[in-house]
Amino acid sequence: MRASVLSDWLAQRLDRGNGQPIYRQLHRLLQQAILSRELPPGSKVPSSRLLAQELGIGRNTVTQVYEQLVLEGYVSSATGRGTFVADSAPDEIVGVPDAEAPAARPEPAPLQARRALSTRGARLIAGAGVSKRQWGAFMPGVPDVTKFPARVWSRLHNKYWRRLRPDLLTYAPGGGLASLRHALADYLRTSRSVRCTPEQIIITTGIHQSVDLAVRLLSDPGDVIWTEDPCYWGVRSVLHVSGLKSRPIAVDEEGINPSADDLAQPPKLMLVTPSHQYPLGMVMSLARRRMLLEYARQNQCWIIEDDYDSEYRYGSRPLASLQGLDTSGQVIYVGSFGKTLFPGLRIGYLVVPEALAESFATASAELYREGQLLQQAMLAEFIAEGHFTSHIRKMRTLYGQRRQTLLDAAAHRYGDALPAVGGDAGLHLVMQLPDGSDDRRVAAAALERNIVVRPLSGYYAQPGLAPSGLLIGYACVPDEEIAPAFNTLADAIDATLPEFA
Amino acid sequence: MRASVLSDWLAQRLDRGNGQPIYRQLHRLLQQAILSRELPPGSKVPSSRLLAQELGIGRNTVTQVYEQLVLEGYVSSATGRGTFVADSAPDEIVGVPDAEAPAARPEPAPLQARRALSTRGARLIAGAGVSKRQWGAFMPGVPDVTKFPARVWSRLHNKYWRRLRPDLLTYAPGGGLASLRHALADYLRTSRSVRCTPEQIIITTGIHQSVDLAVRLLSDPGDVIWTEDPCYWGVRSVLHVSGLKSRPIAVDEEGINPSADDLAQPPKLMLVTPSHQYPLGMVMSLARRRMLLEYARQNQCWIIEDDYDSEYRYGSRPLASLQGLDTSGQVIYVGSFGKTLFPGLRIGYLVVPEALAESFATASAELYREGQLLQQAMLAEFIAEGHFTSHIRKMRTLYGQRRQTLLDAAAHRYGDALPAVGGDAGLHLVMQLPDGSDDRRVAAAALERNIVVRPLSGYYAQPGLAPSGLLIGYACVPDEEIAPAFNTLADAIDATLPEFA
Repeated sequence: MRASVLSDWLAQRLDRGNGQPIYRQLHRLLQQAILSRELPPGSKVPSSRLLAQELGIGRNTVTQVYEQLVLEGYVSSATGRGTFVADSAPDEIVGVPDAEAPAARPEPAPLQARRALSTRGARLIAGAGVSKRQWGAFMPGVPDVTKFPARVWSRLHNKYWRRLRPDLLTYAPGGGLASLRHALADYLRTSRSVRCTPEQIIITTGIHQSVDLAVRLLSDPGDVIWTEDPCYWGVRSVLHVSGLKSRPIAVDEEGINPSADDLAQPPKLMLVTPSHQYPLGMVMSLARRRMLLEYARQNQCWIIEDDYDSEYRYGSRPLASLQGLDTSGQVIYVGSFGKTLFPGLRIGYLVVPEALAESFATASAELYREGQLLQQAMLAEFIAEGHFTSHIRKMRTLYGQRRQTLLDAAAHRYGDALPAVGGDAGLHLVMQLPDGSDDRRVAAAALERNIVVRPLSGYYAQPGLAPSGLLIGYACVPDEEIAPAFNTLADAIDATLPEFA
Repeated sequence: MRASVLSDWLAQRLDRGNGQPIYRQLHRLLQQAILSRELPPGSKVPSSRLLAQELGIGRNTVTQVYEQLVLEGYVSSATGRGTFVADSAPDEIVGVPDAEAPAARPEPAPLQARRALSTRGARLIAGAGVSKRQWGAFMPGVPDVTKFPARVWSRLHNKYWRRLRPDLLTYAPGGGLASLRHALADYLRTSRSVRCTPEQIIITTGIHQSVDLAVRLLSDPGDVIWTEDPCYWGVRSVLHVSGLKSRPIAVDEEGINPSADDLAQPPKLMLVTPSHQYPLGMVMSLARRRMLLEYARQNQCWIIEDDYDSEYRYGSRPLASLQGLDTSGQVIYVGSFGKTLFPGLRIGYLVVPEALAESFATASAELYREGQLLQQAMLAEFIAEGHFTSHIRKMRTLYGQRRQTLLDAAAHRYGDALPAVGGDAGLHLVMQLPDGSDDRRVAAAALERNIVVRPLSGYYAQPGLAPSGLLIGYACVPDEEIAPAFNTLADAIDATLPEFA
């Protein structure tokens, strides 16, 4: 839809008789047109005077709606040149307001809303990718929590609560419980070739807090961070709200692949997923690892290595971590127990260079006022008693089978027509959709059938130019439900892309 | 000490024979001189050329030390005018480096350290107030966790782990578990006159995360926030790292007391403790509450109400919350279970105006990727079954007795010479020390005797001009240990302030 036909489109949809204020209807319709890309990024919207005239409504109403959209980050206005759809509009299907559906509760008054959120707050909300659904086929990134050894966990819980230790119930000293840091240092050394002392390990509540801490300690507002393109949407919000500018760097089959132009402007930080790129799944080559480390050393940048899902590989053995190759103390390694045990546990960790260990521990206590030491003590014992590695082994076998079941179901329905990539590791794979097809519409159609998948394009910096595909998480789906759920998903694909039906 | 005698002072203390590099000795001595206020804020330090000459060391060494101190926020340098001690130097005794003590591990090389922390990171570390000690007499702000009803808690834990519910083990939808939000809405309405629906309650990990979320959603870098002077040091770090400028506002016996000059410059936010001022303990008068609310309404500021320790009052009944008086949706109410149950639990909450509820829930999920729903389910049931209110009742009686035991011990030793204030509520009281006495030295002397108290001056924006006193937490000290521990503290006071011996 070109902007010039916008007023017709709006006029057909505005409904004076449905009891909703015109202000609110117009606001939602414009949001919808922008989120659905019907009003593409960069396009100009009509002047408030013109639009008010063509719709036969007050100019003040239009002005207020435009101001609200500016605050929310949907459009930006340049004095004297007009109002334009923002370049990076919010890019997730979840949370798209439905102009037709009646609202569950009254909308805040325009005046109140206009002064409500700060610029960074409005941008955060407009770009939020988080989903209300966190369980069910085919939720990516969620492990099968029903297989967690609950009895062992309860036994440990009862043991620690039977004899109360006050030091485990009060605030944590910075960095977390010593026994957990020791257990982790051992585990990471043997399984991931991470070289560190226990003091270099900082316990956090997960990757979000780990990245938040690293970014706040190591960068200032306006600093540039390289992110892989595509990358995990959740971390983008954490980076932006701390004032960082992210520069999306393309990936190829060897991982992050900075161009000469990129290399000419060294960033302050880079955030990479060497073990298997998120979400596409390729492993960063050794040559690329060496290049990155040398570049970081020469240009004094920090590398944040997100070793996401490295425990789950179904074919070849993983390469050692980037941290293990680092000889100049420039890699911050982050990991979590969210995918190996259960997400709700909220325990993650950083491994920081020795020179930074004390600052990170202090800052963590100062900023987050940590606790949960009793849970950390349980986890340390869980690891020391061998339950952690045996649980991972068990789940690796199970997930490998589920992955194969999913691949079989896909091949049975589509043959080679919709190839899957990135399935050598992790808890999801990516099914490619035909070029030019709208993966967001497919995901929305699947959600209507109670199937959660995520559109691949939403992980790219410019969703409009991104490849089309679906992230399909198989880990939390019981074996016997995989094929039926895939068929339901396929019905949604076929209904949305009729050329495949 | 004037800056002009600095080189003599340094020359006496630098020790070429002790095996520590001169760079490091000089760095620590200067830090010490600044932290101890011997080099007062704003004073000029000698040029690197002059200091190098007078100490007979290399000028490069001095230059590097100055650069390091700039990065750490101790001094700032103005081109052409020289180098000056920063206005707001780090103000906590904890973490003051000891120039004499040998370091536990090797210091990072100057080059590495120089590029290590960002400006905001260095400032955070330099100003960090967090203590390594979190348990023992007289730790302020820590409840008696040994009285927590561990059996009830274990029973609830076992109940939820016996029949695994996957939705409680995965990520949380924004805002937290519905049952806990319902239980809290009921509790806050009856006990604190907070008026809200469950949807207006956002579960967090505590006051730090609550304030972080509010500040990021409602303000932008450079915005001004009013803080009470004195106030809780921990929140100051959270505010600063998000780019806020805090304007300290004096308090009187009616609570925060903005001057005409303050009122002429409306802030974006204000952070207040109306129930009992932290750490001094006065209750904000009704007139002051009405004035604040009206001022906020007229100037469209947000008020963050920290209802800290409101459950523990030993005399009169508390006034209703500020939130309950707010008719225009400008108050963000924050509270936590850290003091009523146990700090390590890490569950707190915000109550936000209706118009902001959805944005706060989304932002919380997006920024922090919450979990711990099983623990939230346990807590909701703990509240619903009445254990929460009965535990508070029990602890209020216990803490009231301990408070009296402490007051008796103080009166027995000092009579009226060192009066205590702020003891009508909460878990600590403030013992006033004579004007001009150094409460930081007293606290350090107490710590040598294994007694933790906090110097009152550290809670003020300008510790050098602040009243002298000690925060003494009595809640976590067993009854029979209070008098002996106070006598040990008194020995430290007498040794430091001989006029009282």
